[in-house]
Amino acid sequence: MPRYALKIEYHGGPFSGWQRQAGQPSVQQALEEALRRLEPKVPSVAAAGRTDAGVHATGQVAHCDLGRNWEPFRLSEALNWHLKPHPVAILAAARVPDDWHARFSAIERRYTYRLISRRAPLTLEAGLAWRINHRLDVEAMRAGAAHLIGRHDFTTFRAALCQAKSPVKTLDAIEIEKIPRDDGGAEYRFHLRARSFLHNQVRSIVGTLERVGAGAWAPSRVAEALAARDRAACGPVAPPQGLYLTGVGYPSDPFAPPEGPG
Amino acid sequence: MPRYALKIEYHGGPFSGWQRQAGQPSVQQALEEALRRLEPKVPSVAAAGRTDAGVHATGQVAHCDLGRNWEPFRLSEALNWHLKPHPVAILAAARVPDDWHARFSAIERRYTYRLISRRAPLTLEAGLAWRINHRLDVEAMRAGAAHLIGRHDFTTFRAALCQAKSPVKTLDAIEIEKIPRDDGGAEYRFHLRARSFLHNQVRSIVGTLERVGAGAWAPSRVAEALAARDRAACGPVAPPQGLYLTGVGYPSDPFAPPEGPG
Repeated sequence: MPRYALKIEYHGGPFSGWQRQAGQPSVQQALEEALRRLEPKVPSVAAAGRTDAGVHATGQVAHCDLGRNWEPFRLSEALNWHLKPHPVAILAAARVPDDWHARFSAIERRYTYRLISRRAPLTLEAGLAWRINHRLDVEAMRAGAAHLIGRHDFTTFRAALCQAKSPVKTLDAIEIEKIPRDDGGAEYRFHLRARSFLHNQVRSIVGTLERVGAGAWAPSRVAEALAARDRAACGPVAPPQGLYLTGVGYPSDPFAPPEGPG
Repeated sequence: MPRYALKIEYHGGPFSGWQRQAGQPSVQQALEEALRRLEPKVPSVAAAGRTDAGVHATGQVAHCDLGRNWEPFRLSEALNWHLKPHPVAILAAARVPDDWHARFSAIERRYTYRLISRRAPLTLEAGLAWRINHRLDVEAMRAGAAHLIGRHDFTTFRAALCQAKSPVKTLDAIEIEKIPRDDGGAEYRFHLRARSFLHNQVRSIVGTLERVGAGAWAPSRVAEALAARDRAACGPVAPPQGLYLTGVGYPSDPFAPPEGPG
């Protein structure tokens, strides 16, 4: 059966998360139902990141095995047709080798967290960012984040439910952008990059750095929390609607356009 | 009765437009109901721009007359509390003179139109932009737009329903930004500025310029359409969900922070 990689965007709001769960709407289920409109016996799909309820994606990657040979662009168009009216879209499709795996072949995950600081509730961005009503010190947050870069035991920043075998992960980067807003507030975008993340790791880190930005925690307390290897030392977990899975890296990009002559 | 100016943001999706209409949800009604939670007999409010169904605002301005003296910041917080769960937020409030009028004192309106060109349907931005699935030539659109700048009879670009006394308006600027997207598409933002606009003028202009960008119209055809002074010469009207009222100008900004000493 030919295998296809799919690059997927979705609004996490209406879903209980990526993963199929009995009696709950999931992105996986929406995608599998669309695939089964094309071929009734498509096996279950696998994704690079199992996003939680309410978490969005602009660059989720999944793979599926189909019975027929599909021209990748036509496959993406047919899936987008059958995905309606779910807020799930196929941005790209590509034929991949039979042993290529969306999750196990991945060597990097990229997440972005959107935090908006302003007094008024969100209207146009409701469900698309976390809104707080106080100012943040971006330099303090960057100083706090610096303690987390590299290979560490991230037990403090890991959900109790996390199923990963080891709490040791290598966090490659946390970049924090500050974007002024016309409404007098500011948006902070946290860009995190690692080979893989623990369950709730990004939201635990962002919720902790928010405490640093607010002045409630000194940046050095992030290092102490990490060293404690204790979930109780973590700051509050940031809510899901600010989180986006923005991309997944592979040894060679399955969606890269073929190289031209010369 | 003290008069207050309000700067308002809203998602136009759930509303039949700004203006109150029997049996239809409107932004005006949502705001007046919130005001009447503060003072039961508040008179009707007036706004600078009567946006259509589905049109958004990030800088609508309205005024209201209240019986009591309200500290402006406290007024905005109380209104935001009572506006829930409507996607309407007060960004700022200010005390203004009794003869100040949100609509008649305004000397400039600013609109932005968001047009996204990509193959996949929108998910996170659904309802927030117009999506087309072909490429646009931004230079051709700019050349077409140049014909519209200045004082003209805009009959071609005016809804049949338009109630303005004269079709002659002065369009001060149309700036078109092209913003590349990570999904391989592009976003075009049309920024328009005038003292006032005719009904459907911005959407008629954007829909016409889209035809120029797509190559279906030569830029010079925009000049011919304008000269025709005939609604039938207009391109298709762009859909409402891409349009934002972003700001209103007054001889002196009622929301400007008071100047400090020195």
